[in-house]
Amino acid sequence: MEQQYPSKLLENAVEEFAKLPGIGRKTALRLVLHLLRQEPQVIRNFADALLTLSSEVKHCKVCHNISDTEVCPICSNPKRDATTVCVVENIQDVMAVENTQQFSGLYHVLGGSISPMDGIGPSDLEIESLVERVKAGGIDEVILALSSTMEGDTTNFYIYRKLSGLPVKVSIIARGIAVGDELQYADEVTLGRSIVNRTEFNGKY
Amino acid sequence: MEQQYPSKLLENAVEEFAKLPGIGRKTALRLVLHLLRQEPQVIRNFADALLTLSSEVKHCKVCHNISDTEVCPICSNPKRDATTVCVVENIQDVMAVENTQQFSGLYHVLGGSISPMDGIGPSDLEIESLVERVKAGGIDEVILALSSTMEGDTTNFYIYRKLSGLPVKVSIIARGIAVGDELQYADEVTLGRSIVNRTEFNGKY
Repeated sequence: MEQQYPSKLLENAVEEFAKLPGIGRKTALRLVLHLLRQEPQVIRNFADALLTLSSEVKHCKVCHNISDTEVCPICSNPKRDATTVCVVENIQDVMAVENTQQFSGLYHVLGGSISPMDGIGPSDLEIESLVERVKAGGIDEVILALSSTMEGDTTNFYIYRKLSGLPVKVSIIARGIAVGDELQYADEVTLGRSIVNRTEFNGKY
Repeated sequence: MEQQYPSKLLENAVEEFAKLPGIGRKTALRLVLHLLRQEPQVIRNFADALLTLSSEVKHCKVCHNISDTEVCPICSNPKRDATTVCVVENIQDVMAVENTQQFSGLYHVLGGSISPMDGIGPSDLEIESLVERVKAGGIDEVILALSSTMEGDTTNFYIYRKLSGLPVKVSIIARGIAVGDELQYADEVTLGRSIVNRTEFNGKY
């Protein structure tokens, strides 16, 4: 049944919130009423943060990550290893890899993965710019760190073929049993892959 | 561990979203990145809806519900029964009662319920204005439709005492087994109350 809002202005704000993924009308109403209970300045700060982001945010012209500057802080950091480039789907993935503190190279953000079902082809992603980046020289290794899905696998293979013939090593992140997982609950594909791709053990992890 | 955002502007927008109740930083990031993928006009519409709401929304001077006008559409509707006033905690409750299509009177929105734990006393709510409304005359019945919680019960009792002596009937919405509920799963307080407050049955519901 159609909800009857006591105010058109309220309804508009609720409708805008309800457009966001995973936010239904009841949640949207709760969020808008929460904002209305705050000082007007809180709503202004909220709106300003979004408007400023929308108008001023850039994409790093090297790695295509979101950035406040032409070249992002990671790409312009002289301490990072510019010979290794980690290819990821999106910004959250950059943050996830950064959080591991196990990678000191640079990134290349594709903007998604090849998905014919969603109408996303190679030309919709930053793949050509990755090839250009490798062709420009100075990169020894490209690490493919995409999701372990059919779309990720397709994209890995497409990039692998695009880079073949170029003087660069292409590697892929390890797939296997997640740290903390019990063997009996692992799916057989993952377990099989972890046996095939076993690594030498010298007593340390 | 502190998340490292690639952009300060992005971080600001995420922080603003994460201030909303029930929205964590991961969800906030997902929502902001979703907005960033839309046309800039979408973000502008979103921000405008909030800013317009914040600056132009009013509270009905009769019932204190949110309204675009001085007096809300319900209070100014001549077809509604102005002799009956339903007292509710908030705007969502008005919408919930309206959705039942079982009530044709007017409302009085308290703005919450008495909760010493949260520092909300009678003077923080629209109780005095309810008493004034009744004293002004023309109201035959006040229906208390507050939550069936300790705070709701306290508020019901406080309002009941404030209205005692005034020529108005005070009633309270029925408490009992919810429609569709099985008896064996009902809590004993609710079941007990439903027996004490049994109503005459003439074959119809």
